[in-house]
Amino acid sequence: MSLTNASPADAAQAAKSASHVLATLSADARNEALTAIHAGLAAARDDILAANARDLELARQAAADGKLSQSLVARLDLGKKGKWEDMLKGILDVRDLDDPVGRVTLRTRLDDGLELERVTCPIGVLLIIFEARPEVIANIAALAIKSGNAAILKGGKESTESFVAISRVISAALERTQVPNDAIQLVTTRDVIPELLALDQHIDLVIPRGSNDLVRYIKNTTRIPVLGHADGLCAIYLEQSADPAMAAEVIVDSKTNYPAACNSLETLVVQEAALPTLLPAVAAALAAKGVELRCDTASKAALQHVPGLNLVDAVEADYDTEFLSLTLAVKTVASLTEAVAHINAHGSHHTDCILTASREQAEQFMAAVDSAGVYWNASTRFADGTRYGFGTEVGISTNKIHSRGPVGLEGLMIYKYKLRGSGQVAAVYGEGDGKKRFLHQRLPLE
Amino acid sequence: MSLTNASPADAAQAAKSASHVLATLSADARNEALTAIHAGLAAARDDILAANARDLELARQAAADGKLSQSLVARLDLGKKGKWEDMLKGILDVRDLDDPVGRVTLRTRLDDGLELERVTCPIGVLLIIFEARPEVIANIAALAIKSGNAAILKGGKESTESFVAISRVISAALERTQVPNDAIQLVTTRDVIPELLALDQHIDLVIPRGSNDLVRYIKNTTRIPVLGHADGLCAIYLEQSADPAMAAEVIVDSKTNYPAACNSLETLVVQEAALPTLLPAVAAALAAKGVELRCDTASKAALQHVPGLNLVDAVEADYDTEFLSLTLAVKTVASLTEAVAHINAHGSHHTDCILTASREQAEQFMAAVDSAGVYWNASTRFADGTRYGFGTEVGISTNKIHSRGPVGLEGLMIYKYKLRGSGQVAAVYGEGDGKKRFLHQRLPLE
Repeated sequence: MSLTNASPADAAQAAKSASHVLATLSADARNEALTAIHAGLAAARDDILAANARDLELARQAAADGKLSQSLVARLDLGKKGKWEDMLKGILDVRDLDDPVGRVTLRTRLDDGLELERVTCPIGVLLIIFEARPEVIANIAALAIKSGNAAILKGGKESTESFVAISRVISAALERTQVPNDAIQLVTTRDVIPELLALDQHIDLVIPRGSNDLVRYIKNTTRIPVLGHADGLCAIYLEQSADPAMAAEVIVDSKTNYPAACNSLETLVVQEAALPTLLPAVAAALAAKGVELRCDTASKAALQHVPGLNLVDAVEADYDTEFLSLTLAVKTVASLTEAVAHINAHGSHHTDCILTASREQAEQFMAAVDSAGVYWNASTRFADGTRYGFGTEVGISTNKIHSRGPVGLEGLMIYKYKLRGSGQVAAVYGEGDGKKRFLHQRLPLE
Repeated sequence: MSLTNASPADAAQAAKSASHVLATLSADARNEALTAIHAGLAAARDDILAANARDLELARQAAADGKLSQSLVARLDLGKKGKWEDMLKGILDVRDLDDPVGRVTLRTRLDDGLELERVTCPIGVLLIIFEARPEVIANIAALAIKSGNAAILKGGKESTESFVAISRVISAALERTQVPNDAIQLVTTRDVIPELLALDQHIDLVIPRGSNDLVRYIKNTTRIPVLGHADGLCAIYLEQSADPAMAAEVIVDSKTNYPAACNSLETLVVQEAALPTLLPAVAAALAAKGVELRCDTASKAALQHVPGLNLVDAVEADYDTEFLSLTLAVKTVASLTEAVAHINAHGSHHTDCILTASREQAEQFMAAVDSAGVYWNASTRFADGTRYGFGTEVGISTNKIHSRGPVGLEGLMIYKYKLRGSGQVAAVYGEGDGKKRFLHQRLPLE
C-alpha cells in the first residue's frame, strides 16, 4: 500500500500497472497478503488506536464548536466496543471466501484444436471514495486484493491520522508478499476528488461509500462507471388479500428496524379495497412505534376513527422523498397495475415488496416492478449482501448494468475470452463452397 | 413501432413505459412479434425497395457532387444481391435463439419459507445510434424485442426514406401483437442526438453502431453507459518458439483478411530472439499481400537483406495508430514481460494474440494482457459474435464492466433479485443471543 503525495494521475497510472501484476497472482498469493495484513494490524493495535485517538480529539473539539456532528464523531471511534475486532475478523472473512478470479463460465469448441473459454478476471483499478469511518480502509483493501483489483482510496479528512497509521501497517505487510505496494494507494492530498474522477483512462470503476449527497455528486461528475446508489426509496404494496398480522409485522419491520438505512420503507401503496380492512391495524402498529403517516385523501379518510395516529396530509413531493426517519408516505391505488406504475415512476429501483396471499398477484408484481429487489411477503430490510449470503458487501447498486442490488465480490469481476488454437486463420471459415464450418460445440465447465 | 416526431424526452418516456410492459411478456409473445415483423416486411418488399431507391437516388447525386463517399452509397443499397434476404433471415435467426429472459442464475434458501432467486431480465431502454445501413433497423428491432428491451433508434439521414418505410411496416405488424408500439421508436427529427444523450433518467444503455468517430463522440458526450468500442488496436506477440509457417499464416490472416475491421492486426510485437529466425519469412508473406511495415531500428536491421519488402521507419505514434489498412507497425521487445507491458500501454484492450510453442508463455500472456480477447496461436479475426457461436452480435465492447468482447443477446440483460417469503422480518435475525441465523443454503438451479 502506498501512502501517496503523488499527483492523482501518477497514482492512478501506478495503480494501473500494479493491477496488471495483481491480476496474474494466484489465489494463495492474494490470500497470503490478507493474512499478512491481518497480522500486521493485530501487532500494531496500540499505535493505530493512538492515532485514532488524535483524530477523535480533533473531532470532539470540532463537534464542541458545532462544526461536526456527534454521529460522525461516534463513527470515527475505532476503540468502540467490538469495532477493532470486527475490522480484523472482516479481513479473514474476506480471505476465506471462494476465489472469484479465474472461474470458467463458458467453454465452446469452435473447431478441432480451437477452444474458446470465458474466464472471470478483475476489472482493473477501483477508486473508492468514502467518508470518515476508519475501518473501511482495511475492509476495502481486503476486498480489492481478494478480487485482484487495484484500488485508490480517498477518505474523509477527519480520519486522516487513523488512515495514515493503518496504511503504513498495510504497506509494510505487503512488502513481504507478492502483491505490489502500488496496488492499494491511499491519497491524502486534499481536494483531489475532481481530478481523480477525470482519470477515466486509468480508473475503471468508482465506488462511493457515504452519504446520498456524496454519491449523487460523484454520479453527476464523472464519466467513469459508478457502482452505488444515491437513493433508497423503497415501497410496499399492500394488496387486499394480505394476512393482516403478517402485513403489520412486515411493514413495521421495513419502516422501523433501522429507518436511516437505504433499504427502509418510505412509501406504503395501499389497494383501495384494503383501506377499511387492512390499513387501520397497520397504521396503529406503526403509530405504536412513533411513525408519522403522510396520507392522501382516501387513506386519511379510512383512518379517521383510529385513535392515536399521527396523520399529516401528503403533498406530491412526499412520494418522491427518502425520509430516512419515522415518516411514511401512504398512497391509495385501485389495482396492481396502478401500484406498479406508481412504484416504477416514483421509486428508486432499489427494493420493493408486495404483501398478498395471491401467488399470481405476487409474480405479476415481481415481473413488472423494475427494481433490483422485488419481494413477496418479506421485509425490504433483507436487501443486504450479508443477508443474501454473499459473505461481504461492496455496496448496493441501483445501476441497470453490470451489478444490481447488493454487490459482493462477484460484482468486482469482469471476464475475458481466452482462445487457444493451433494456427487457425479466419479466412478458411464461412458459409460458401469449400469453406469450413464452425463446430460451436458447448463443452462442460470444469 | 412508433415513428415519432415527439420530443426526445417524450419519446424516451414512452419507451420507458413500454419497456415495463415488454419486460413482462412471455417468450412466445415476443417471438410472435418477430414472426409478424418478418411476415410484414416480406409482404412489403416492393414498397420498401422503392423507398430505398429514392434514398439511393439522392445519395448517388450527393456522391456525384462529392458530398458523400461511394462506399456509403454502396452500404445504403437494400437491393444488393442477398441483402434483403439476409435481413429477413436475420429476424428469424434471432427469434429462434434461446430466450435470454428469466434465466435463474442463483437460488439460495435464506430461511425456511424465504427463498432468494436471481433472475435475468431486460436492462430497460436502449438507445441505438447508427449510420446509413437501412437493414440495421430490422436487426435492432428484432434484438430488442427478443431481449425484452425497448429501443429508441436514431439512424443516419441518408436512409430516411428506407427507415420510414420499414418502420411503418414494423409498426403495423406490432399492432396485432402484445408488444407495445412504443417499445420500438424511430426518431426522425434531425439534430436530436445531444438531447437523447442527456436523457439518463429514461435511457439505460447507448449502443453506437458506426464509425470510430461516432463512438468516440458518444462516449465523450453522455453519462449513460455506452456499449461499444472506439478503437480496435490489436497486437500479436511473435515469440521465438513459434512455428514459422503457422506464424506467417496467422499474421497474414490477422492483417489482410479484412484490414478495415476492428479485429484486424495493427502492431506486430517481435521477441528480439525471433528477429533473425522468424521475422524475415513473416515479412515476406506480408509483403506478398501488399503490406507496408513500419519498423523500429532492430526489426528493420533484421529485414535488411530480405528482397521485395516495403519498409518504413516507425515513429512513436505508429504504435498508437489503428491503421485499418495494409500498414503494420513492428516493435521489438526483449521478453514476454516487455511485450505485455507494450500491449497493455498501447493497445485498445480489444483482442491480442501470442504465437508460441510454449504453453507456459501462452498462459502467462493470456493472464497478463488486459484485453477482452487473449489468443494463443489463432487469428485475431476470430473476435466476432458469430464466430464465437453467439448467434448474433450487438457489437464488440472494450468496456471493463458489464459486457466485454463480442456481445450477444446476453449482453443486453441484467438481473433482479426475487425474494419470496412468508412474512419474515429482518429484526429477528442476527448474531446475538435469541436471534435466528440465516440458512444460506444454495439450491440447485432448475
